[in-house]
Amino acid sequence: MSPDPGGVSRRGLLGLAIGAGAAGLAIGAGAGATAGVAVGRARAETAAAVHPFFGGHQSGITTPVQDRLHFASFDMMARTDRDDLVSLLQDWTYAAARMTQGLDVSVSGAVGGSPEAPPDDTGEALGLPASSLTITFGFGPTLFELDGVDRYGIAAQRPSTLEQLPAFVGDDLDPNASGGDLCIQACADDPQVAVHAIRNLSRIAFGRARLRWSQLGFGRTSRTTTAQQTPRNLFGFKDGTRNILSDDTAALDEHVWVAASDTPAWMAGGSYLVARKIAMLIETWDRVRLSEQNDIIGRTKGEGAPLSGGDEYTEPDFAAADTTGAPVIPVDSHVRLAHPDANEGTRMLRRGYNFVDGNNDLGRLDAGLFFLSYQRDPGQFIRVQRSLSTDVMSEYIRHVRSGLWAIPPGAAPGSYVGAGLLS
Amino acid sequence: MSPDPGGVSRRGLLGLAIGAGAAGLAIGAGAGATAGVAVGRARAETAAAVHPFFGGHQSGITTPVQDRLHFASFDMMARTDRDDLVSLLQDWTYAAARMTQGLDVSVSGAVGGSPEAPPDDTGEALGLPASSLTITFGFGPTLFELDGVDRYGIAAQRPSTLEQLPAFVGDDLDPNASGGDLCIQACADDPQVAVHAIRNLSRIAFGRARLRWSQLGFGRTSRTTTAQQTPRNLFGFKDGTRNILSDDTAALDEHVWVAASDTPAWMAGGSYLVARKIAMLIETWDRVRLSEQNDIIGRTKGEGAPLSGGDEYTEPDFAAADTTGAPVIPVDSHVRLAHPDANEGTRMLRRGYNFVDGNNDLGRLDAGLFFLSYQRDPGQFIRVQRSLSTDVMSEYIRHVRSGLWAIPPGAAPGSYVGAGLLS
Repeated sequence: MSPDPGGVSRRGLLGLAIGAGAAGLAIGAGAGATAGVAVGRARAETAAAVHPFFGGHQSGITTPVQDRLHFASFDMMARTDRDDLVSLLQDWTYAAARMTQGLDVSVSGAVGGSPEAPPDDTGEALGLPASSLTITFGFGPTLFELDGVDRYGIAAQRPSTLEQLPAFVGDDLDPNASGGDLCIQACADDPQVAVHAIRNLSRIAFGRARLRWSQLGFGRTSRTTTAQQTPRNLFGFKDGTRNILSDDTAALDEHVWVAASDTPAWMAGGSYLVARKIAMLIETWDRVRLSEQNDIIGRTKGEGAPLSGGDEYTEPDFAAADTTGAPVIPVDSHVRLAHPDANEGTRMLRRGYNFVDGNNDLGRLDAGLFFLSYQRDPGQFIRVQRSLSTDVMSEYIRHVRSGLWAIPPGAAPGSYVGAGLLS
Repeated sequence: MSPDPGGVSRRGLLGLAIGAGAAGLAIGAGAGATAGVAVGRARAETAAAVHPFFGGHQSGITTPVQDRLHFASFDMMARTDRDDLVSLLQDWTYAAARMTQGLDVSVSGAVGGSPEAPPDDTGEALGLPASSLTITFGFGPTLFELDGVDRYGIAAQRPSTLEQLPAFVGDDLDPNASGGDLCIQACADDPQVAVHAIRNLSRIAFGRARLRWSQLGFGRTSRTTTAQQTPRNLFGFKDGTRNILSDDTAALDEHVWVAASDTPAWMAGGSYLVARKIAMLIETWDRVRLSEQNDIIGRTKGEGAPLSGGDEYTEPDFAAADTTGAPVIPVDSHVRLAHPDANEGTRMLRRGYNFVDGNNDLGRLDAGLFFLSYQRDPGQFIRVQRSLSTDVMSEYIRHVRSGLWAIPPGAAPGSYVGAGLLS
C-alpha cells in the first residue's frame, strides 16, 4: 500500500487507532490536529502555553525553553520497510500535532472510544492544558544506513556530516544507551504532559519502532529569550547566559538553521541535534573551594559575571590580567574554551536539562546535565568539544550517553515530519 | 562531647559548616531558621509558598500536596554513636528549617563564605523561591536495633509496631533499595528545590549517614485539600479522590496522628510513613479495553465516578446490582477492596507520586507510582494491603521497593526533630 505523497495515509491513520476499531476515522493531519474533539483536556490555557506544531521549523528549538524534558531515542524494528517508516512518521505527526494543542492523541481519545476497545490515549494528561508542550523529531545516522544496508531507500539522501560523533576526551559512553534511528524531544512546563507525549508516541510506534533509551530532565539550564532568567546547573552555576536567543535571527540563520543553499536540500529549515548525557561528580565538585570553582568556570558562582568583571551579561575580557600578569579568566576555564573567540566564532543553541536518576551503591547521586545543542552543522559541536579537551571542568564530569540526529524542517499543515525526505 | 539537651549542639553546627571554617557561627536553630541572611534567594514568594518547619506536627503530611518529590533513605555509617545521631538530626533540622524558608543551608551560603573554602550550599537553588518546600524526617526500625545491636541506646523506645512490613502478594522487593535507618521526604512545587534539599542534606550527613536509595517523583497523585484537583496516575485514572483532607481534623486524629494516649509517648503528634515503589506494567495495561479498565478500578476513567453512578465525589454504592443481579462495582475492583467499608473503617492519608526512571531493554518505560501513606499505626496499611491481595489490578503492578518509618512530631523552635526520642 503506497502512502499518499505529502499527506497522511489511511494506513497511517489506521496504525494510530491501536485496537480501537476506529476504522471510520478519516481526518487529515492538519484538520485533525487543530479541529479535533477535545476529550476532557482543559482549554483555558493562555495562548503562550500553546505552541504551533506545523511550520517552517520544528518547534522545541527556539521555543522559550520549557521547564521539563522527556527525551527518547528509538530504533526501527527488524523487517520494517519504507512504508512502515512513512506511516510511523505520519502517525507521530498526527498525534504530536494534537497533543501540542492539549488534545488526546486521537479523536477517539482516552474515554471517547468504544468501551470494548483499549483507549487510544493512555489518559494521564486528561484535564491538563497543553503546558507549552513541544515535540521535536530527529533522524539518526543509522536510519539512513545500518551495517551497510539501506533499509528505507534513503542512504543517498543522508547528510554527509550525519555520522557517529568522533571520540572525545572524557567519553565513557554506554553504546546501548547512545544513538538511535529516531529521536523525540518532548519539552513542557508540566512533566506529566511531557511523559504522556513520549509514552503515547512510543505506544503508537508499536510494531514499527521501539524505545532504545530515554531520559527525563527536571530543570532547564538554558534560556532562549531575553525574558527568561538564566537557570543553574548542578554545579550551582548559571548555565546558558550567552545562548543564541530566539529573536536573534541573524545568529539563528548563521549557526542553527540549515540554509537552502546547504545540502541536502530536504534539510533546509532543519538543524542538527547533539544530545550528551553528562554525569557530574557532584560530591567531588562540592569539596572544591569557591575560588577554584569560579576559576574552573571563569565566572562567579553568585552573579554569574565573568571573572574579568561586570555583571552576568558583560562580555568576558580574556585579555584582562592580574598584577602578576596572569589572565584573570584562566586559560583552562570553561567559559574561555567554550567561547566563540576560542572556536573561530562557533556558536550553538543549547537547551539542556538537569537530571537526577537515583544514586549509586556508594550513596552518590546519579546526577548531571543532559546537554542538548542545535546547530547548522554537527561540526560546530565537534569543534567546541575538542576545544574543551583541556577544560579543568572535565575532571568533574563524564560523558555517558551520546547521540546525533538530523532535525528535519517543520511539517506543512496536511503533511508530516520528514515528508521532504520520504515523499 | 554531649549535645545540649533539646537544643542545637555546637558540634552539630560545626558539622554543618563543611570545610567552610565557619566556627564563629552560633545561632540557635529557631533563630537561624527564620532570621538568617538570605544569600541571593528570592524573597518575593507568596506566603502560601512557604510552609513552617517548626510546629507540633512535621510539615509535608497535611500540607497541600506539592507537585514534585525527591525521597531519600539513609543508613547510619558504621561506628557512629548516639552523639553522631543527635548532631546529624540537629544539623538536618537547622538546614531544613532554612531551606523551607527559601534560604541557603547555612548563613555562609553558596557564595557568602570564604573563597578559600567549599561553599556550604551547593548553589543550584540560588535565586529560586521556597516553592512550597517541605522536608519530613523519619526513623526506620533498623535505627532502633540492627542485627540485635542497640547502636544508639534507643531500642527500648522503639514503637512495637515499627518493624519490617510483612510480605504481601505481588511483592518483588529489592532489599538493597528498601528500608533504611532514616528517611527524608522533600516535596516542592519546583523539582530543583526538592533535589537541592536532598543533595544538601545528604552532603551534611557526610561521615555520619549515607544515602541508601532515593526516588524522584514528577507528578503528585493525591490531594490533601478541597481546593486541589485530583490528579491522575499512570493508569490514566484519577487517584486520591477519597484522601483524608487537611481540614478533616477528626479523621486526622483518628487515622493519621499518633495520640498522646498511644505509646511510646515520644511519638505523640507523629505518624507512620509507608513508602512503596510500585512498578506499573503500563504497556500491558494500555492493551486492556476501557470497560475492563473501569471494572478493575471500580470507577470511570474519564470522570472518576464510581461505577454505581454520580460524579467523582459521590460515595460508591457497593450494593448496586445490574439486571442480572451482579454487583455494578465488581467484588475484585480496587475501589471496593481499598474502601474503608471493606477494611473495618481503615483509612490512610496518601501523597504518592508518579515516576518514570528510563526504560528497560525491551523498550518499556520503567514507570509507576511511588506510594506514600501516613497513618497512626502501620497496621492500617497492612490491613488494606492484605485486602488488596485479590485486587485484579495486582496483575498490572509489582511492588519493587518498600519501607516503613516512624515520623516523629515536629520540632519546637530551638529544638530539633527527634529531640523527644534522643534528649
